[in-house]
Amino acid sequence: MNNTSFVIGGCRSGKSSHALALAEKIPGKRKTFIATCIPCDNEMKKRVKNHQAERSDKWTTVEAPVNLPEAIYEAGKNSDVVLADCLTLWISNLLLDPETSDKINQYIENLINVMKKISCNLIIVSNEVGAGIVPENELARSYRDLVGFANQKVAGAADKVTWTVAGIPVKIK
Amino acid sequence: MNNTSFVIGGCRSGKSSHALALAEKIPGKRKTFIATCIPCDNEMKKRVKNHQAERSDKWTTVEAPVNLPEAIYEAGKNSDVVLADCLTLWISNLLLDPETSDKINQYIENLINVMKKISCNLIIVSNEVGAGIVPENELARSYRDLVGFANQKVAGAADKVTWTVAGIPVKIK
Amino acid sequence: MNNTSFVIGGCRSGKSSHALALAEKIPGKRKTFIATCIPCDNEMKKRVKNHQAERSDKWTTVEAPVNLPEAIYEAGKNSDVVLADCLTLWISNLLLDPETSDKINQYIENLINVMKKISCNLIIVSNEVGAGIVPENELARSYRDLVGFANQKVAGAADKVTWTVAGIPVKIK
Repeated sequence: MNNTSFVIGGCRSGKSSHALALAEKIPGKRKTFIATCIPCDNEMKKRVKNHQAERSDKWTTVEAPVNLPEAIYEAGKNSDVVLADCLTLWISNLLLDPETSDKINQYIENLINVMKKISCNLIIVSNEVGAGIVPENELARSYRDLVGFANQKVAGAADKVTWTVAGIPVKIK
Repeated sequence: MNNTSFVIGGCRSGKSSHALALAEKIPGKRKTFIATCIPCDNEMKKRVKNHQAERSDKWTTVEAPVNLPEAIYEAGKNSDVVLADCLTLWISNLLLDPETSDKINQYIENLINVMKKISCNLIIVSNEVGAGIVPENELARSYRDLVGFANQKVAGAADKVTWTVAGIPVKIK
Repeated sequence: MNNTSFVIGGCRSGKSSHALALAEKIPGKRKTFIATCIPCDNEMKKRVKNHQAERSDKWTTVEAPVNLPEAIYEAGKNSDVVLADCLTLWISNLLLDPETSDKINQYIENLINVMKKISCNLIIVSNEVGAGIVPENELARSYRDLVGFANQKVAGAADKVTWTVAGIPVKIK
């Protein structure tokens, strides 16, 4: 039976490592990692490289900065587990592109539908971005709202939700 | 028997919806919503409208941007449940008004006293604002300290405390 | 038997008070408080004074803004409990000093080694700084990454980990 998990935590809270550990434990050799990240600067490229180095060679990597729901659905046809990391960068990509910025709710809806349809195990990673002070920047506030909304939707649809703090996974659903 | 609950979470973590769901479950038709928000711009007005649309017609709404303790006490006389949303904006209103900015601790003390005296169910909502990077702005740092202090006091006095993450309520007291 | 605890929470989440309460409960009269803070402005001096006033007179205070691992190790020889508060300021001190900024990983490694070697009870306090919006400032982003990394390492090595929210301690390990 397939199972959907959502892993959420602050920056450097160990969420990606925990999600990867969950995925590695799932039986089967067909593992797909879906990266939402467009590595556009050196800081980001380094981060991506570090994450890649953590994964075993069973993994196929797919980049889906925009069409995450479709990428998950397609990957699900031939995978034992799909790990999508992360929701936050996906929302950021959608928000910063004028072609997608006014259709974000529809994209989130599509993701929820894919979560229900998919027949392999799925793990989605996201960031908590709303537990600091209200940002002065209006775009940052919109982004914070959208990410929070997406996190709620995905957590609501997931079978299991884990909150990570300082590398410790805490099961909350 | 009356019961006091405190619901705390990041922005868009589902705290208001969870508090509302708790309040809707409480038997009795007399439900009072106390808004601390002064909707001064369109972004805020939209947020208030969305929250109002979520509530059933059993609700009376009272605005109490400054005198929250008194408003809760008064509403408590004729309500089965009082829901105050949220502590964070109340502290912000107190801090930004020169007439109240140096009396915030007294206001918080009054709120704690009302929590002990009130004879109906009470639910108070607040934001976690201290889990991000230290703000550069001094006023933001003072605000963060005051909100954290108020959250500790109210959580300490409450019978139940719930932490919300991505729409998932986690009972922590 | 000695025991290592890690207490992490947002700003003003009650982490220092909780850590102090844990330390006060430990039998024995020899209690050492290790402060990583260099109180350089009035805001900070006030904060330090408030924290000192909370501690009973059993406490010896040691300042270790940079050499935290050594200070813990030395204090451990003659203490029943050592309380180090906090990791976040220590990382900040290491990052801002050109002599130490490129050796932070080594310092963290030393700390982990001391945690394993120490023969008295040890409590380490830290801040969650990664659950807000991504900071625009590059140094703040580096800092956030380093603190998150240190928090994961220390939590991983600790026997017990507590997450504090609004003054409520939540045991997560």
